[in-house]
Amino acid sequence: MPSRMVVFIVSAFAALSAQAGESWIIRTDLWGSPAFSTLNANVAGSTITGDIDGDRMEGTQTSGAWQVTTTDAEGHASHYTLRVSGTRLTGNADLPDTNDPSARAAHEVTGWRVPERPRGPRVVDFVPSDYSNTWNADRASVLVVWPGDTIHTTTIDSGGVDEHGKTRALFGNPQTGPFFIAGATPGDTLVVHIRRLALNRDYADSLDTIVGRALATPLVAKAGDLGKPVRWILDRQANRARPDGATGALAHYSVPLKPMLGGLAVAPGFGMPALSTGDTGRNGGNMDFNEVVAGNTVYLPVQQPGALLYFGDAHALQGDGETSQYALETSMDVTVTVDLIKGRSVSMPRVESPDEIMVLGQAGSLDEALKAASGGMVQWLQQDYGLTLSQAAQVLGTAMRYSVPNLAGRSVGVAARISKSVLPAHKDERAAPQ
Amino acid sequence: MPSRMVVFIVSAFAALSAQAGESWIIRTDLWGSPAFSTLNANVAGSTITGDIDGDRMEGTQTSGAWQVTTTDAEGHASHYTLRVSGTRLTGNADLPDTNDPSARAAHEVTGWRVPERPRGPRVVDFVPSDYSNTWNADRASVLVVWPGDTIHTTTIDSGGVDEHGKTRALFGNPQTGPFFIAGATPGDTLVVHIRRLALNRDYADSLDTIVGRALATPLVAKAGDLGKPVRWILDRQANRARPDGATGALAHYSVPLKPMLGGLAVAPGFGMPALSTGDTGRNGGNMDFNEVVAGNTVYLPVQQPGALLYFGDAHALQGDGETSQYALETSMDVTVTVDLIKGRSVSMPRVESPDEIMVLGQAGSLDEALKAASGGMVQWLQQDYGLTLSQAAQVLGTAMRYSVPNLAGRSVGVAARISKSVLPAHKDERAAPQ
Amino acid sequence: MPSRMVVFIVSAFAALSAQAGESWIIRTDLWGSPAFSTLNANVAGSTITGDIDGDRMEGTQTSGAWQVTTTDAEGHASHYTLRVSGTRLTGNADLPDTNDPSARAAHEVTGWRVPERPRGPRVVDFVPSDYSNTWNADRASVLVVWPGDTIHTTTIDSGGVDEHGKTRALFGNPQTGPFFIAGATPGDTLVVHIRRLALNRDYADSLDTIVGRALATPLVAKAGDLGKPVRWILDRQANRARPDGATGALAHYSVPLKPMLGGLAVAPGFGMPALSTGDTGRNGGNMDFNEVVAGNTVYLPVQQPGALLYFGDAHALQGDGETSQYALETSMDVTVTVDLIKGRSVSMPRVESPDEIMVLGQAGSLDEALKAASGGMVQWLQQDYGLTLSQAAQVLGTAMRYSVPNLAGRSVGVAARISKSVLPAHKDERAAPQ
Amino acid sequence: MPSRMVVFIVSAFAALSAQAGESWIIRTDLWGSPAFSTLNANVAGSTITGDIDGDRMEGTQTSGAWQVTTTDAEGHASHYTLRVSGTRLTGNADLPDTNDPSARAAHEVTGWRVPERPRGPRVVDFVPSDYSNTWNADRASVLVVWPGDTIHTTTIDSGGVDEHGKTRALFGNPQTGPFFIAGATPGDTLVVHIRRLALNRDYADSLDTIVGRALATPLVAKAGDLGKPVRWILDRQANRARPDGATGALAHYSVPLKPMLGGLAVAPGFGMPALSTGDTGRNGGNMDFNEVVAGNTVYLPVQQPGALLYFGDAHALQGDGETSQYALETSMDVTVTVDLIKGRSVSMPRVESPDEIMVLGQAGSLDEALKAASGGMVQWLQQDYGLTLSQAAQVLGTAMRYSVPNLAGRSVGVAARISKSVLPAHKDERAAPQ
Repeated sequence: MPSRMVVFIVSAFAALSAQAGESWIIRTDLWGSPAFSTLNANVAGSTITGDIDGDRMEGTQTSGAWQVTTTDAEGHASHYTLRVSGTRLTGNADLPDTNDPSARAAHEVTGWRVPERPRGPRVVDFVPSDYSNTWNADRASVLVVWPGDTIHTTTIDSGGVDEHGKTRALFGNPQTGPFFIAGATPGDTLVVHIRRLALNRDYADSLDTIVGRALATPLVAKAGDLGKPVRWILDRQANRARPDGATGALAHYSVPLKPMLGGLAVAPGFGMPALSTGDTGRNGGNMDFNEVVAGNTVYLPVQQPGALLYFGDAHALQGDGETSQYALETSMDVTVTVDLIKGRSVSMPRVESPDEIMVLGQAGSLDEALKAASGGMVQWLQQDYGLTLSQAAQVLGTAMRYSVPNLAGRSVGVAARISKSVLPAHKDERAAPQ
Repeated sequence: MPSRMVVFIVSAFAALSAQAGESWIIRTDLWGSPAFSTLNANVAGSTITGDIDGDRMEGTQTSGAWQVTTTDAEGHASHYTLRVSGTRLTGNADLPDTNDPSARAAHEVTGWRVPERPRGPRVVDFVPSDYSNTWNADRASVLVVWPGDTIHTTTIDSGGVDEHGKTRALFGNPQTGPFFIAGATPGDTLVVHIRRLALNRDYADSLDTIVGRALATPLVAKAGDLGKPVRWILDRQANRARPDGATGALAHYSVPLKPMLGGLAVAPGFGMPALSTGDTGRNGGNMDFNEVVAGNTVYLPVQQPGALLYFGDAHALQGDGETSQYALETSMDVTVTVDLIKGRSVSMPRVESPDEIMVLGQAGSLDEALKAASGGMVQWLQQDYGLTLSQAAQVLGTAMRYSVPNLAGRSVGVAARISKSVLPAHKDERAAPQ
Repeated sequence: MPSRMVVFIVSAFAALSAQAGESWIIRTDLWGSPAFSTLNANVAGSTITGDIDGDRMEGTQTSGAWQVTTTDAEGHASHYTLRVSGTRLTGNADLPDTNDPSARAAHEVTGWRVPERPRGPRVVDFVPSDYSNTWNADRASVLVVWPGDTIHTTTIDSGGVDEHGKTRALFGNPQTGPFFIAGATPGDTLVVHIRRLALNRDYADSLDTIVGRALATPLVAKAGDLGKPVRWILDRQANRARPDGATGALAHYSVPLKPMLGGLAVAPGFGMPALSTGDTGRNGGNMDFNEVVAGNTVYLPVQQPGALLYFGDAHALQGDGETSQYALETSMDVTVTVDLIKGRSVSMPRVESPDEIMVLGQAGSLDEALKAASGGMVQWLQQDYGLTLSQAAQVLGTAMRYSVPNLAGRSVGVAARISKSVLPAHKDERAAPQ
Repeated sequence: MPSRMVVFIVSAFAALSAQAGESWIIRTDLWGSPAFSTLNANVAGSTITGDIDGDRMEGTQTSGAWQVTTTDAEGHASHYTLRVSGTRLTGNADLPDTNDPSARAAHEVTGWRVPERPRGPRVVDFVPSDYSNTWNADRASVLVVWPGDTIHTTTIDSGGVDEHGKTRALFGNPQTGPFFIAGATPGDTLVVHIRRLALNRDYADSLDTIVGRALATPLVAKAGDLGKPVRWILDRQANRARPDGATGALAHYSVPLKPMLGGLAVAPGFGMPALSTGDTGRNGGNMDFNEVVAGNTVYLPVQQPGALLYFGDAHALQGDGETSQYALETSMDVTVTVDLIKGRSVSMPRVESPDEIMVLGQAGSLDEALKAASGGMVQWLQQDYGLTLSQAAQVLGTAMRYSVPNLAGRSVGVAARISKSVLPAHKDERAAPQ
């Protein structure tokens, strides 16, 4: 970890500390749909000051009973009546109506207190006991970590099977998590450094299919013969995978292992329900991008307090497009370090390798996904490299590379990529990978 | 050139020789639209035998006046009355009607005799005097070459400007050619080995644009500021290009040269009119694929007698997608060797590098282009590597790479690519590159 | 209601009765994800027979404690230990593993008993107390109805506002429901006859936007000026809507009212999480199809026991494509009659008017949506009209009409439509609308 | 024909007359590619004044030898040396270079004189002797007509067969024309009123195919059984078509006749080669739009002097999308009236019926075609109805209809349609249909 990143982490920590007092995550029930906020409070005797999601908060407390009021940018007041009990709170909020701010409605509130930050960056071992089949803002976090912390854990395969061959969850890409990154709020960027992806069993499962999006007309007629399971032997010594029992032209077929995480996401934002872990979005998701590998860094736009990081669906390796519907699905031993870029958002997921910067566009067609990826790359060149739009256009025209990570889901992914070898030095160190 | 390719060329030559006699290319005027055929004739005294496009031909000649009849697979007869004068012929054909074979109609015929093959593979220098703005089956060929021959010539830039800065043709990708490859007939594959692409001037012209297909919504509003010309300095010593007069973040921007041919095509087939040299198709065209470089081989499906090879629109280098609408447009010194694979067709253009096999799909959307590319790759794996469809699916799933060569034309291009390092040895030597 | 439909309803009722005994809906918790099944039981003394989702069930009961075992088609047994208490049951299931049927795992089970069918088709008034922002298989049903029953209820607008202007739910198309249709099981088709859609307030809210999918490049640059709210006056006497306070060229603009339901769906199937009520799928959803109007019938594929019908997001009227992102959003008074077609599935949502049959294809691009719609129309012509594929092709070529209902969501919709005037009489009366 | 249109025609005639003198169409050969211009000359003794394409022209003549010079907006001069012989001229032009205006090059010029306008609007019978398989700016016009003139002629079917069953041209939509509309110059709009489309034979030919763009995955596998010819009986008494020899469910199938022109186009503009008559573009083309029927009016953007109007490929009727690849292909008796809107362009083809205004977007995918159509509709509402963009958005949201005319070609077509019943009166009478 180079020193400049340490500097960053310390400053991020300082920013958290500056808020002083107590940090709470509150959940407001809006007619059955949850809204999550960060409440920062300084309790001095009977006086409470602070903010909720940046709106100034004032009020009083009497033996754990809080009466606080926030005022938003338009001057509308929200009144909270809360009861604190240890690290939990409950109560209700009297809020301006979502359609007519002159009207008001009462809503139930619950909350939990974010613990104090432990000293220094930590390495935390986490052993999962259950798994999530949705990218879900309303699932309790399994662990609280801080920027700079490193998580060491495991994932199970897309069918829910762990490294011992035991089914631990329902099929459909069950994920480990969510991890709560203290200090993360919507508008920030979550930085996930993939430190290590280690196979922890000797086989992977796949199919001999070609997905519909890769099937030209003359092949469709024959595609009915496909779809059979193929087991792959993972040879960790030779660092190669080979189809078990292959004959004929594939009798000696093998490919180099390149372990990757198919799924990596933060929770979707306010007003969005939980999403299937088979799905993707601005928040990342089932990206199935074969550059989410050890040594690379993923950047995701934070949508909820604490970001709520999930990952899983590891592949021993995968061709572009995941054209076989199932890649080489396997369980994995995972180590990641998390960081934050406060107050700067990315329009869509980014991946950085030692050699390239990459933006992933995801949409319902390749044509739209490529536009999203290209637009995200222009944003990156402008934000971090100080290029004008005209200059970005010249760089794209001479150095853009496109690949197609994913064809197997509801959305498809196109990656826009530029070699760092032609780029000027970073304008902003904060986004620098390690 | 390895020996096995020499063997092939000799056998192709032998095949041509075996036809003995005379080979003519005839043009039949069908109500104003041309149809081209290969007429092979053995003239023995007053007796003529042979074939037209494989249909058996019989007839007589008297002092240059030919009366011949062919019979097609359904038993329909075509009667030709021709007058031979040196290497030219004229006359007419009485043919079954295109809609109702029981009816007949007369059509004018002209033709020219294909010269005898010179000894051995040759290297031919060709200095173009004009250029074609269409991929055109009805344009007189500028040179007749044979499988194994090498052509050394030049191309002008997409604006029609040559290496001396002089305008030689109308803008719109004017092409050098067409070259007639003796012995090529529809159903064959034309093999073009790119031997050398050498810059012959010190600048290229481009724009600072981003094409509409790469423009995400938030950028479109600002795209009106783009579209200005950018001149690039081509530094042949340093092997890099840099924008002339660049300042700010691009003051030191440079990219490695990678000279390529943006345009390479055979003439479109019967019933298709000439196509703009800005357009693409199964016949190749304005592919703008940054892998059409020296050392690589292009395979195109022959659509007309002699194939009629055109090339031009060279770029000093180009990012994926040609997102700046104009790449680094320049003139070029070009050396290619042509070969034929008789009797085997490719569904769409293929490119082979020392490391990869690549298929280019071209269509009106990326989604359709990717299907075409993937289907073409499966065809290649089946034809040359002996894979079953199930095996091909497994190779795609583990080794496919996709790139996006071209976004700037009416059709877009997606390349499906597989590393040779994971493939078994070629099943069929004839397609082997050198 | 014509007699033949009465016949159908009676026979459907008979089918239900034939199952005799008790019908339960059980929910099995699979590592946190729910699976719903229909358990039909005949309890005769200590002996229990019946089935769970068609798998034969046998077992015993002792004072409310059930021990039953089912056997599936592959011979794998599932053992249930259940405790019945009134109309509720709890217990656990010992099931074959989802990945390896030779392994087993225990899962918690809960359930509720479907009440006895009341006499004859009923008309039921339902007053909603809350609304759902997801299409959710795991939400308790608000009402149990039977095939032939008519539901009279209300919906609130897409912003959650009711007919009195009061916010009753979070924005994002909150829906009334779900209604449990007794006897419905996956593989059936739910038939929803829209009897009456009556405006119950005098205004609707919309925007002056053009959605991105309808924005040609030259307009995008100006689209930033759009997005302002537009209130529409709904004149129920004149049966027209007009923009409030319009001036200039729109000073006298008005359009005929055509009340419709933007949202109509059944719950998604096993393994699918709840979906946003802004989303669409095979199960219907936020179709925003301006033919879901009074007098027409909607057919949806049942995915869960009881189907779980939701509807809402009514529009006073809507152009094709819902190009203004918000249509004329308003609350509504709704009357529908539900029916079932047992044992026959539709590949995607169908709508039938007195004059037309229509199939809605929904996908990430118009190109894919049109394919889905066309394919669904062929399926309909084959299922109900007895056409061969060749005959269906001839009907499509001469009578197909396409419209584009929806451009505003993540998926877009294309409708394939054929006039009944050219179709032969229904082959199968069961699908006949009334 | 209402009086206001007569007024327009007279004024258009006046505008032509005002140019006085002589009007010539000149063809400049630019390295093998043609450029067409309108030369207006006043010859007074030895002095010539006038313009070429609006650039002021001055010069002298001596017994048919012209020496004239034009000056363009940037001040660059072009020198023409021409020899006039009756209604033909030949010579050469010394023009600024297309890449570097400071350099110059000489080019050959030929030309023909547009005849004087005959008195009043005429009805002209035209009997075609040949047909064009391309939309071609470089094909000699078959007839010169003036705004207000009516053309009565015939077209042959897409296979080249006339009303007597005789093959008259090569298959592929051979067209009647081109008709030269005197006074038309690029930037104008050509108005084609379809007066009458009358069947002139009793059969049409079609296929039982479903085009790939309408084929959902499960059908593709069976599509190989399709593609057989289907002959249709055209019953002009009953005004219906029925498949010849149909049995089973189609034994009594018939559909109402709705004769239409599948092909209607002006020549493509400068720098564009001739296009296949199977292709489409801004210039119209093989639109296959089932609203190009008698009583409707088509508006096309003029790209070349004289517009060069072609039409053909008539269908006895056609479903949306021309999903059977061949519609009911037949020959036709055609009457059209041509008009001009000087100095105003349409971004893409428009069609106006008594009830609707319609814009046809054509592109490589439905998604792009719909954007083009929608954008064209906004342009129309702004140009002719005086709407602001915000107002246009409101009209689209409440009154837009979309249909899908064409799926069978390289480009697909989407029509944006609005009922005249909700629109204010035309702002500009000149575009009013009759």
